[in-house]
Amino acid sequence: MYRSNTCGELRLSDASKQVTLAGWVQTVRKFGAITFVDLRDRYGITQLLFGEDLNKQLEENPLGREFVLQATGTVQERTNKNPQIPTGDIEIIITSFKVLNKSAVPPFTIQDETDGGDDLRMKYRFLDLRRNAVKKNLELRYSVNRAARNYLHSNGFIDIETPFLIKSTPEGARDFVVPSRMNPGQFYALPQSPQTFKQLLMVSGYDRYYQIVKCFRDEDLRADRQPEFTQIDCEMCFVEQEDILSMFEGMVKSIFKEVKNIDYTETVQRMTWEDAMWQYGNDKPDIRFGMSLLNLKKPSSVYVNKEDQAALVNGADFKVFDEAETVLAIAVPGCSEYSRKQTDELTEWVKRPQIGMKGLVFIKANTDGTYKSSVDKFYSEEKLKAIADAAGAQKGDLVLILAGNEERTRKAISELRLEMGKRLGLRKDNEYKLLWVLDFPLFEYDEEGNRWVARHHPFTSPKPSDIDTMISNNPAISNAAEYLKHPYANIKANAYDMVLNGNEIGGGSIRIYQRELQEKMFEALGMDKEEQQHKFGFLLGAFEYGAPPHGGIAFGFDRLCSILGGSESIRDFIAFPKNNSGRDVMIDAPATIDQKQFDELQIKLDLK
Amino acid sequence: MYRSNTCGELRLSDASKQVTLAGWVQTVRKFGAITFVDLRDRYGITQLLFGEDLNKQLEENPLGREFVLQATGTVQERTNKNPQIPTGDIEIIITSFKVLNKSAVPPFTIQDETDGGDDLRMKYRFLDLRRNAVKKNLELRYSVNRAARNYLHSNGFIDIETPFLIKSTPEGARDFVVPSRMNPGQFYALPQSPQTFKQLLMVSGYDRYYQIVKCFRDEDLRADRQPEFTQIDCEMCFVEQEDILSMFEGMVKSIFKEVKNIDYTETVQRMTWEDAMWQYGNDKPDIRFGMSLLNLKKPSSVYVNKEDQAALVNGADFKVFDEAETVLAIAVPGCSEYSRKQTDELTEWVKRPQIGMKGLVFIKANTDGTYKSSVDKFYSEEKLKAIADAAGAQKGDLVLILAGNEERTRKAISELRLEMGKRLGLRKDNEYKLLWVLDFPLFEYDEEGNRWVARHHPFTSPKPSDIDTMISNNPAISNAAEYLKHPYANIKANAYDMVLNGNEIGGGSIRIYQRELQEKMFEALGMDKEEQQHKFGFLLGAFEYGAPPHGGIAFGFDRLCSILGGSESIRDFIAFPKNNSGRDVMIDAPATIDQKQFDELQIKLDLK
Repeated sequence: MYRSNTCGELRLSDASKQVTLAGWVQTVRKFGAITFVDLRDRYGITQLLFGEDLNKQLEENPLGREFVLQATGTVQERTNKNPQIPTGDIEIIITSFKVLNKSAVPPFTIQDETDGGDDLRMKYRFLDLRRNAVKKNLELRYSVNRAARNYLHSNGFIDIETPFLIKSTPEGARDFVVPSRMNPGQFYALPQSPQTFKQLLMVSGYDRYYQIVKCFRDEDLRADRQPEFTQIDCEMCFVEQEDILSMFEGMVKSIFKEVKNIDYTETVQRMTWEDAMWQYGNDKPDIRFGMSLLNLKKPSSVYVNKEDQAALVNGADFKVFDEAETVLAIAVPGCSEYSRKQTDELTEWVKRPQIGMKGLVFIKANTDGTYKSSVDKFYSEEKLKAIADAAGAQKGDLVLILAGNEERTRKAISELRLEMGKRLGLRKDNEYKLLWVLDFPLFEYDEEGNRWVARHHPFTSPKPSDIDTMISNNPAISNAAEYLKHPYANIKANAYDMVLNGNEIGGGSIRIYQRELQEKMFEALGMDKEEQQHKFGFLLGAFEYGAPPHGGIAFGFDRLCSILGGSESIRDFIAFPKNNSGRDVMIDAPATIDQKQFDELQIKLDLK
Repeated sequence: MYRSNTCGELRLSDASKQVTLAGWVQTVRKFGAITFVDLRDRYGITQLLFGEDLNKQLEENPLGREFVLQATGTVQERTNKNPQIPTGDIEIIITSFKVLNKSAVPPFTIQDETDGGDDLRMKYRFLDLRRNAVKKNLELRYSVNRAARNYLHSNGFIDIETPFLIKSTPEGARDFVVPSRMNPGQFYALPQSPQTFKQLLMVSGYDRYYQIVKCFRDEDLRADRQPEFTQIDCEMCFVEQEDILSMFEGMVKSIFKEVKNIDYTETVQRMTWEDAMWQYGNDKPDIRFGMSLLNLKKPSSVYVNKEDQAALVNGADFKVFDEAETVLAIAVPGCSEYSRKQTDELTEWVKRPQIGMKGLVFIKANTDGTYKSSVDKFYSEEKLKAIADAAGAQKGDLVLILAGNEERTRKAISELRLEMGKRLGLRKDNEYKLLWVLDFPLFEYDEEGNRWVARHHPFTSPKPSDIDTMISNNPAISNAAEYLKHPYANIKANAYDMVLNGNEIGGGSIRIYQRELQEKMFEALGMDKEEQQHKFGFLLGAFEYGAPPHGGIAFGFDRLCSILGGSESIRDFIAFPKNNSGRDVMIDAPATIDQKQFDELQIKLDLK
């Protein structure tokens, strides 16, 4: 044993104890004949005091930053206490010490605010991980892991490991594949999720399954995606949507309590996918603030059950609105006194390529009760007031209006809403708002293949009331232009997403458990019988032997941790992340392999 | 919600309650106008009683084995109680029911003793998993998982996930590799263990790390090996061997208590590798029984510190012993009255190719005090008595002697000892004996390369007293014939294996943490500086920035579960295992992949 205590545990009550500590040298400060060393380990920092008697030895063994030191001495009360740290009342008068290992000068400072850039820190990730800021993230990750497990355990879930070497069934994302040496010419795939296996476990009667498990997707990495990521993966038997929602909002609340000591007592809000899109332009709205959308104009083919307020803008001869598919507005609180410069800046903001709008219309609901707009020419003050009122604007608010193509405009107003929420401080770091988004469309239309694709995945069941529609109709789309009129376009999924502060943290569905319906689904996705059998024969087979109703959910564990840790980047919560090219720059992987490995695997390169 | 209760929870105290159950039909028994159904779920079995009023409906919806049924009714006391099951005091008088899903007739019976062969059960693993025998194994696995986590958590360990897509550094077993689409021509490897990453976490100061994690080895699968397997992987900072031994025998004892309710209070025995080989012919001896070896003769070049009893056999002109490198004996209790047929059978047993001996010599220590032997011609009764006494034989015992080449003979006597232990019932299922095996040789000699290979792995440190020997000598072996005289041959590793009932369940070591020593190790293994840098540059680099002393251990989780579950096969404790060709016969993986996947990965087949 190299130590009697850690660097985080000694207190005034330990005064006069003989102790041995081991850790890393954080700082060395010489004051005349005496030397102070802050010694650091995972648990904290303790001040060591080297007296004059150790000077000779210190000269022979000079200490430097990040040296590994073992030191023995007596705990004593400090004259100059440090209330910032738990050990700040004491120091250790060192009687003997040993340098266990030296350190080169680190390429960046091991501090919360380091001078190291991202690339350097990733290359020396083992040093970056020493920083308190990073350590806190990984500790938080562990406490989320622990809280989730404890909740699931106490609710009767059991952790069952599913295989990593499975079969490639590309549908949705791309698989990573693994050549099989023992079966030349054949490949395993790494799982994108344990989806089919957890369903089989339900068929096997395991009733409540969970796993905190690595999953793999070979996608071009957008910022903040990782080729390997972790899911809290769960499945339950004999459940309906309501059972899943209550079980898993319970889990997230329990994590809030355990990890952040937050009592999330309020009811978790619920919203249909259609309402989310209609009111927020987004299927994962941040509901920490209002500013919901006024739908001034919508295309006739979508949101057929919703009514727009076209009367407010029509008939004014304002071409921009008249020619637009969609006109959407939000009322931004307290911004009616924005200067020309400020509204110009907002106009530039929506014209950036990432947003892609042609311009921005505004109405100022002035505090004096007057209304001013960038489209005064077309709309009387009375009409402006009517629009502003419809948008929910109060005196002093600024109404922002975007017009254009439905998909882009809805996305743009959502982005603008989030941006204004951020600028106005309405998206508070320490506020957490959960939301269930429900009733997604089961299918999306794939223009290229003129066929349906599963919005969630091919195992998601339709709403019970839509099963007949699905079974009794031919999924083929005869008239591509009118795909929205196909009965499948209106089938709703028995699916749910959990949204936290505008981030999707989990998603799942009640699954199909009848062979006939599953075959119909595969057929809708353009899979013929042979392909169905090749890829999913085992699942279709399993459904013939007493498959129970079941459903589940998977949480993005990395994302959940990053939100709870108050960060935008999941990378900060992964011990050894990969960069945007999928590289681990520390170990320098991926890398070339030996010819012997190619020979054994019976593959060769075919570089273009 | 499909049910008010599970099939395992209703008791007499629930009588007259209205309940709804859901589960699988285990059996259907008709008695005249009434029908009994045993309904099964994960939690148990409950008897349902369908009265005459439901006959019509039962005729329309006949129930079959493994049908999924939802049924509502009233709990009542049974007239004919079944004390075998916890719900045996009650039954449910059904008032309404619904078949949730039908089942085809299963290809084998869903019973503890099934009529399904191994291949069939693996193909329909989702049905096999329904059997109580298999379910119990997976439940036991989860409870071991849970007990390990709880122990480690309460001892300050934190679970940190290490990456699965890493770099291929073949040394020891073969890596599975994963072509990188984003980095054409380059490959990831799947980890054989998180070894280097957990060491980096120690360099980063995480102090106590654990993970229950999948590992991968592309080996030709001997019986009971799996290409993917699970480890309880742990590492600690600032520790010596003693700290690790006490921490992890604590863990295993805690698992015994939690999972089996066994108080393992006795001290865990320890044995050096040399003693284990000398006394049991095996580095993982089963110490539930004695029958330790009498070393009658050993080669002069090995076990140089041990003395054999050659005087007892030499000078008798018995060529078999005289010409043998090694002569080893065990005393089998109570078998002196074995018939000729029995001793012949034992002789045949050791002559089988798996054992490979030429013959077997025996001495009967008869109950009347006389001694009879198959080599009476060469040894007087007095000499036979001396040998039998040295072997520890009591009156009534049978001494079995093998002679031949050192390696084969030692292995053979160990196998014979285990076989006799089994035949005599000395290896009791419900007895658990832990053992630490210590002080392994650091190196093994590799004849083919005329170089050293790491017995454990290249990160294991030598005993502190052997570090100088390692640093100050040239690892190159100039005289292959005399490799045993090389100073490296006697270097002992700071390594330890935990053995349970003759199975290695865990192994680990104190690691090298000094760059110079690590480089020397790589050099001994035949790696030049360039290869060292290419493969392990990150680790050597990390050792320059304040690497602390550290060490760890990994437990074979599958094996540990199988022993605690009383089975010889790890496959029984894996939900979806692969067969000996590395195939998952249920999902039929590995499989071919699409041309598009080859194109994207820029590889092609190169079948021989």
